[in-house]
Amino acid sequence: MSFDKGTLKRPEILNSDSVSKRVVLKGDIDNDVAILIAERTVWPTDPEESNDIYSWYNCADVKLNLIHPATEKHVKKYSKQNISMITETAKAYKEITRPFMAQTREGTIGWVYNILDGKAEQDAVVYRDEEVVGNRHGFVLMKDMKWDGSTLSTLYLVVIANDRDIWSVRDLRKSDANWLESIIEKCTEAVEKKYGLAADKLRFYVHYQPTYYHFHIHVTHAEYAIPGSTTVGRAILLQDIIERLKIGPEDGYESATMTFQLSSEHGLYPLLKN
Amino acid sequence: MSFDKGTLKRPEILNSDSVSKRVVLKGDIDNDVAILIAERTVWPTDPEESNDIYSWYNCADVKLNLIHPATEKHVKKYSKQNISMITETAKAYKEITRPFMAQTREGTIGWVYNILDGKAEQDAVVYRDEEVVGNRHGFVLMKDMKWDGSTLSTLYLVVIANDRDIWSVRDLRKSDANWLESIIEKCTEAVEKKYGLAADKLRFYVHYQPTYYHFHIHVTHAEYAIPGSTTVGRAILLQDIIERLKIGPEDGYESATMTFQLSSEHGLYPLLKN
Repeated sequence: MSFDKGTLKRPEILNSDSVSKRVVLKGDIDNDVAILIAERTVWPTDPEESNDIYSWYNCADVKLNLIHPATEKHVKKYSKQNISMITETAKAYKEITRPFMAQTREGTIGWVYNILDGKAEQDAVVYRDEEVVGNRHGFVLMKDMKWDGSTLSTLYLVVIANDRDIWSVRDLRKSDANWLESIIEKCTEAVEKKYGLAADKLRFYVHYQPTYYHFHIHVTHAEYAIPGSTTVGRAILLQDIIERLKIGPEDGYESATMTFQLSSEHGLYPLLKN
Repeated sequence: MSFDKGTLKRPEILNSDSVSKRVVLKGDIDNDVAILIAERTVWPTDPEESNDIYSWYNCADVKLNLIHPATEKHVKKYSKQNISMITETAKAYKEITRPFMAQTREGTIGWVYNILDGKAEQDAVVYRDEEVVGNRHGFVLMKDMKWDGSTLSTLYLVVIANDRDIWSVRDLRKSDANWLESIIEKCTEAVEKKYGLAADKLRFYVHYQPTYYHFHIHVTHAEYAIPGSTTVGRAILLQDIIERLKIGPEDGYESATMTFQLSSEHGLYPLLKN
């Protein structure tokens, strides 16, 4: 479709980010909700351009992305997040967060089991491990859907635990430290073998709160800082988790007091708000 | 000065970042080294523009910053960082990092003492605390020089410890947990009073390795994710540090195994490289 002045009726700004230089507009097109994402493009670094550095100053630098018709879920997703820092005690976890997790898991975690059972997304699987370490039974290392599968500098993989009773970092126990260490070891080896990336170029981290309540670990290129994903307060370094399990009590993260960021749109927010 | 084709001789790309859409070029101008930083500008959100959304698509969207003549230090600062993940054992800290810190501190930490002694940057001080908590003797809360001092969404403050024997998180002991908790409490109160920002809108974190070896805490707006600063693997959430001190041994972080990112340009890199 083509745009001109007035195509998007009643425009309002949903979000504007000063780091990524992205603006998200909401408006109406033909009486349906439309979301228009306008983003500055990445500077071209194609070597054939480098004889004339002023070619970077040209004006073809806006990438537009239109969602139309957009649902309420889209509007929520692209709206500016109102983020607060929340402290969750062991008691609040047990009484509020754990039941919330159980409810959220219902009917929404099947896609994970399909991957584990070999029924879906098998071409994205990088490595499978079935070895029993302590109480745990292996994992699947796969390409995250956010990764293009080839650009090493934006490498994004995810480790999904085979065990279905680890919903989040809260379910990790002291006895899991060795298993987590073996994950780092096996994954760095698999990545080195498949992508030729050295062991010290991988960042392993876990989100709390995570997007879905089946334990998974994010594995990204060490040079790839991703606002919202690698940000401390949402991300916890896997090696720090291992250290904490080792020096802490048998029940691991179950008795911890945890502080993390939470969007006001998150279902837990009204329940945990301090 | 004005630019035209050929002003910058022998241009080469020092860095290009896909998140911030920034490109850094190095070249020569009048036989001196020059660094040219070209960055897409932030989308205008001035309400008077919002009647016509297409005004955002105009071409005046490049911010140029020239450093000329540039020193080797500038070139290093603006070059792409080659980042690796490093694991530092307690032994490596004692034998390698600690002596490196002592050497680095020599003659470079005076500016911090000038702030603490009230001799410099006093207009940037937001709050001073002299209360003795356990073994510690207060702190100074001040505006970070990266903050414009008024835009709340990019608020950036820093807490500098009065005690001169805390070089980094490695010097924190179990007995410091209460002191660190009191810092969070006092700073959130001071920020709420001065800037009207609610207590749950602040992210407290510490860098390891830090930029300078005198203990300081970063305090930023919860919604402000800053690649390179809030990134897990460099940043550790202050509340996680407090938790670790509470459940861990008396000697706190001295005996910890720590994993963090390190640029290959960092003086410690060749010494700690695993």
